[in-house]
Formats: sequence, C-alpha cells, structure tokens
Amino acid sequence: MRLHEAESPNARRVWVFMKEKGIDIERVPVDIRAGENLTPEYRAKNPMGRVPVLELDDGRFLAESVAICRYLESLHPAPTLFGEDEWEMASIEMWNRRAEINFAMNAASAFRNITGFFKDRETCVPEWGQVCAEEAKSQLGVFEEQLAKSDYLAGDRFSIADISMGVFYGFAGMIEKMAQVDFELDRPNLKRWYELVSKRSSFS
Amino acid sequence: MRLHEAESPNARRVWVFMKEKGIDIERVPVDIRAGENLTPEYRAKNPMGRVPVLELDDGRFLAESVAICRYLESLHPAPTLFGEDEWEMASIEMWNRRAEINFAMNAASAFRNITGFFKDRETCVPEWGQVCAEEAKSQLGVFEEQLAKSDYLAGDRFSIADISMGVFYGFAGMIEKMAQVDFELDRPNLKRWYELVSKRSSFS
Repeated sequence: MRLHEAESPNARRVWVFMKEKGIDIERVPVDIRAGENLTPEYRAKNPMGRVPVLELDDGRFLAESVAICRYLESLHPAPTLFGEDEWEMASIEMWNRRAEINFAMNAASAFRNITGFFKDRETCVPEWGQVCAEEAKSQLGVFEEQLAKSDYLAGDRFSIADISMGVFYGFAGMIEKMAQVDFELDRPNLKRWYELVSKRSSFS
Repeated sequence: MRLHEAESPNARRVWVFMKEKGIDIERVPVDIRAGENLTPEYRAKNPMGRVPVLELDDGRFLAESVAICRYLESLHPAPTLFGEDEWEMASIEMWNRRAEINFAMNAASAFRNITGFFKDRETCVPEWGQVCAEEAKSQLGVFEEQLAKSDYLAGDRFSIADISMGVFYGFAGMIEKMAQVDFELDRPNLKRWYELVSKRSSFS
C-alpha cells in the first residue's frame, strides 16, 4: 500500500492514525499548491481531487480520510480506534462527525474564504468566511462541555474522534493567525484535553 | 427506542434505513420551524440542536444520522447496509461521505443561503449560496461517472451510500425550484440509478 498525501490536516489525521496502529507504509507527496491534485492523472486516483488517497497493492484507490482509517482498522483491529461495542462505535462516529462537520469544516471555510489561500481555483466570499468563523467558535462550546464530562471526546477511550479534533484544533491555531479570527480555543477543558492528546507520540 | 425527528433529509435517511432493516420504532415530532430544536430541553438531547436524535431505552441519546444508522446496523446486521468485507465497508463509507460532503452539503448551503429559509436564526450570504450551487452541480459529474460503472454507488450492493444520495438527490429537485438554481440533475446514469433506488418500498 502507498499513501498519496500532502501537508494537510486530513493527511495528518491518517498519519496519526497509522502511528497509533504501528502501520508504516510508503508515502507519495502530492504538490497541492502547484495543483497536482487537479490533474487528470490524480483525478484517476480520486475524482474529487483531494488528499490523502490510499493506493492498494492491487491498484485500487481509496479516498476520504475516515474511509482510509476504517480500512486500516479492519486490517489492524488492535488497538481499536473506532470502538468495540454498539454504543461506543456509534458514539465515536457521532463525535468524529461533530469534530469534522461542526468544527473543522467551518474553521476551514473561514480560512479559505478569508485568506483566499486557493483563490486561483475557487471563488472566495470573505463575508461567508466571517460567518463560518463565528460558527466554529460557537460550536466549540459543545466540545468544551463534553470534555468537562470525560477524558476523551467519546468517553474514556482515545479514539479517531480525538485524532480528528486534535488535528483540527492544532490547525485552528494557525488559522486564527492567518485569517485574523478568534475561535476562543483557550478554554479550560479543551486545553486540558489537547495537552493530553498532543503529547502522544503519534502527534509528534 | 424513540426517534426525535422532523421532515428533513437527514431524518428521511434514517427512516429509509429503518425500513430497509424492518425496524419500526416510535417517532417523536420536533417542530423545527418553531425552533423547538434550539430550546434547552432539546439541546439536552443533542447540543448541536439538530434532528434526528435516537433516544435509547436507558435514556441515552445518539445524534448524527450516520451514527444512528451504524448503531441500528450493529443491532440488526442483516441485510447489511454498511458492507461486509474490508474493501466494501471502506468503499461504502467513501461514497456515503462524498454524497454528504461533496454534494448534499453544497446543495443545502445553496438552499439556505439563497432562500434565507432559516434567516431568523442564521446569517445568509446569497453570493455564497450561488458558489455552492455551482459546486454541487460540478460534483454531480463524479457521481454520474461512477454510476456508469456500477448499478449502485459503491458497487453491486445497495448501501447506505445509495440511501444518502437518493434522499439528497430527491431533495435537490425541490431546492432547484425554491432557490432557482440548476444542478443538472437530469443525467443518464444518475437518472437510471435514481429510478432503481426510489422505487424501493423503503423510499415510498
């Protein structure tokens, strides 16, 4: 297997996941700034033009970070990062989705629309970026509340939800500086949790 | 178990999923237009203020449609809607996410920002709605290409990816009228696939 990737939060999620599992595979860099991900050659791997993409030994390609992680979990079940019983699996899925949909997508949309980082290939609407920045900040309150109740997002077990939110939370600090927005990242429970998560060797 | 729900595409995904599984549980209507989903009572069930929410018999609550479906799949494994082997499970996850992230979220954002349907509770940026409408239309091309290769989105088996895309595709027809946008829904393979999917009794 090979992982086609670039320096992006989504690729980083897969690296952290693989480190937690002790999986080490070849990595093939994709030059996103130069638009390599938008070429016909790359779109044959992932028609959505995104990274990362996992290339299987039989030549098939798998895109979408969480789908890649789930595939790796099937091949290497221990330690589980998607949960064991019905409730835990569902709860991890719920928190992983909240981290992505409610926080990360808003933060990323703020970044792209305000900074115009990809304005060579997409239409940016700065006013919308500000709406998203406010939304990301507001949604963080739900994570802060949850982390007052448990060590990790979906309970006592470190999971893919913590990998996702940990990577996005770290990235959000950079977005704050580049887009000059304020997500109010510095909240007591989130901070305590991020210290716990980011000191794991998989995050280094 | 009880499902707290409203007439929404996400709730509909869960209904269709349950019908496919032969699951029948009590449904509790939530009045979204009146903002019932934003009250403290409802937020105690789902702090994100969204529908649907599954209430378990022990009083726990599970939000996020796909997390709810995965929980129901654990309890009622047959017929599988999330796949059986490693590749199939990952491939279904990939296509389900593409249906949600690449198509549905753009179509829904076009709807909300252009029509101002929820302008009593969110800031709408019509210009952004137009960007999303273009993006949704563009992404549909990937689905059209995929459906030239297989009967269903993730291969030969009907799955949750078809439920998601089927519900969103149906909803997109309404969005086109209400927001006066054009997703070019009428493409040969998508049309053939939608006829196949929407004639299932679960979709009626």
